[in-house]
Amino acid sequence: DLGATSLDVGICNLDAKPVAVDSIEFDEAASPRQVIESAYQIATGLLNGIGLTSSKIRGVGLGVPGPVQFSTGTLVAPAILRGWDKYPISTALKERFGCPAYVDNDVNVMALGEQWAGGGKGVQNFMFVKLGTGIGAGIVCEGKLYRGSQGCAGDIGHIVIDGCDVVCACGKRGCLEALAGGPAIGRRAEAEVKQRSTPVLSTLLKEHGRLTAKDVGLAALRGDPVAAEIIKDTGCLIGRVLAKTIDFFNPSLILIGGGVAKAGDLLLASIRELVYQQSLPLATGDLIVQPSALGDRAGMVGAAVLVLEKLYDARTVAQVIA
Amino acid sequence: DLGATSLDVGICNLDAKPVAVDSIEFDEAASPRQVIESAYQIATGLLNGIGLTSSKIRGVGLGVPGPVQFSTGTLVAPAILRGWDKYPISTALKERFGCPAYVDNDVNVMALGEQWAGGGKGVQNFMFVKLGTGIGAGIVCEGKLYRGSQGCAGDIGHIVIDGCDVVCACGKRGCLEALAGGPAIGRRAEAEVKQRSTPVLSTLLKEHGRLTAKDVGLAALRGDPVAAEIIKDTGCLIGRVLAKTIDFFNPSLILIGGGVAKAGDLLLASIRELVYQQSLPLATGDLIVQPSALGDRAGMVGAAVLVLEKLYDARTVAQVIA
Repeated sequence: DLGATSLDVGICNLDAKPVAVDSIEFDEAASPRQVIESAYQIATGLLNGIGLTSSKIRGVGLGVPGPVQFSTGTLVAPAILRGWDKYPISTALKERFGCPAYVDNDVNVMALGEQWAGGGKGVQNFMFVKLGTGIGAGIVCEGKLYRGSQGCAGDIGHIVIDGCDVVCACGKRGCLEALAGGPAIGRRAEAEVKQRSTPVLSTLLKEHGRLTAKDVGLAALRGDPVAAEIIKDTGCLIGRVLAKTIDFFNPSLILIGGGVAKAGDLLLASIRELVYQQSLPLATGDLIVQPSALGDRAGMVGAAVLVLEKLYDARTVAQVIA
Repeated sequence: DLGATSLDVGICNLDAKPVAVDSIEFDEAASPRQVIESAYQIATGLLNGIGLTSSKIRGVGLGVPGPVQFSTGTLVAPAILRGWDKYPISTALKERFGCPAYVDNDVNVMALGEQWAGGGKGVQNFMFVKLGTGIGAGIVCEGKLYRGSQGCAGDIGHIVIDGCDVVCACGKRGCLEALAGGPAIGRRAEAEVKQRSTPVLSTLLKEHGRLTAKDVGLAALRGDPVAAEIIKDTGCLIGRVLAKTIDFFNPSLILIGGGVAKAGDLLLASIRELVYQQSLPLATGDLIVQPSALGDRAGMVGAAVLVLEKLYDARTVAQVIA
């Protein structure tokens, strides 16, 4: 699972269960080739640790942040990891590891993980919503991951909040991500510190030099009212957009994950409030909105599932999941 | 195809092609039983006209406006046809016609029709959007009609426009339908006539005693600037909501149908403008937004497809469609 500057590496068994894991931080300027080489070194190290060699690897799966052309395994015009644009990631992985390799968008991979071993087990229609630097959703429709016609289904971070004028990195105005993504939360907190009395946030700003969404979540938990207000407003914005996707998709489950989701119950409560207020009663009657079951491991499990689905007959996999 | 107070009846062949059609208007107070009896009389009359008897009917399909529980063939809490709430429509049809009968939401049926013989032929992921008294979408996902977990997927008429306060018949505020549905268009036109100089609309109001969306479309075509403005604003609202569903679903085609869609090019242009302005470029790159190919016949063809899909192996049908 590849983040902006970190990569989680895991050895998973044939049930997609991680049996040995590690992670690396890398420089944003590092080339894809260098990062893949590091991943290979870590993977072989992990294998050695459990008495195996790289010949035992049946396949490599990777989740990356940004739009992925699944057929070629490349990132297309990513907002982060810009240096990876159009780099043939799956080909490079395949060559270095000497086995089949598959690359998909991180939220798709997380949705697969939750379907295999988490909250989405046996659920026909659900969404995995990742709240982090970016905001996106992995969609499972009729028991199958749905990628859309151009592979960009679930890009809810760029759904526009009507009447909002904030410019997004994508060039549009009022995108959810520009208002409720990690950086937006941090920026608002820094602005609030200058204008209002925010004891905990002020202290954290002095300690860290800047404020992140994590700081705001922490401050809210420690009782900072301004931080709590920011979290609540963020949840309302996210809930507002999710309500629209619920009216359209009518899922029975929404799983919330990603770094910003760690802000916890207050965020989830605000999301739920707006979802139940703005979606149709028929659509929310049996709808469950809950935190990701696998948390930080959803992506790793899902990356393994990506491989398993290709290695084995899709129908068998579907039966195993059901 | 059952509207608020009218019912289109058609005899379709095994290619879902209507070979004899008629329609009736009925009183809103008429019981479902009475309407079904009328439908049976019309159908047998149509059959006689082409030298056949009712024993030749292989199945009956019906599209109805409102949320349908597909498994039982009943309308659940419909906003119009309130007297049909929970009435066992498919059972009643089955008994009267003496053959299998299937009932679905009207937009779902229209989407099926377009998939079989219209603009959606061979398209994996598309939406059929009906603009009329109500606003709704039929969703075809990976080549199959998608109904959602509670059967209410595609209910885009109740997606909320942020910051808008108009109360909808559903009880929520700011629903698209309350702002851009047929009645809303008529009401706005009547209000404008009182406040501004609207030559064509004023004349139509005097002639008809009230204004409908059809009048507004007609006035716009005849060069009434206020009517044109109403159509344009309506298209922008619809486009705004469609843009959000496009970011989520990433379809390759959107078909626009229903009575209000007859307002024509001006409406379509406004819808397209907002869709291309507010959706992600990757999602709109190959997206086509165009009028329904089958028009008023989409529902009838789709109702026949509903029967064909049940009568014959779904896989065979899929191959025929592809």
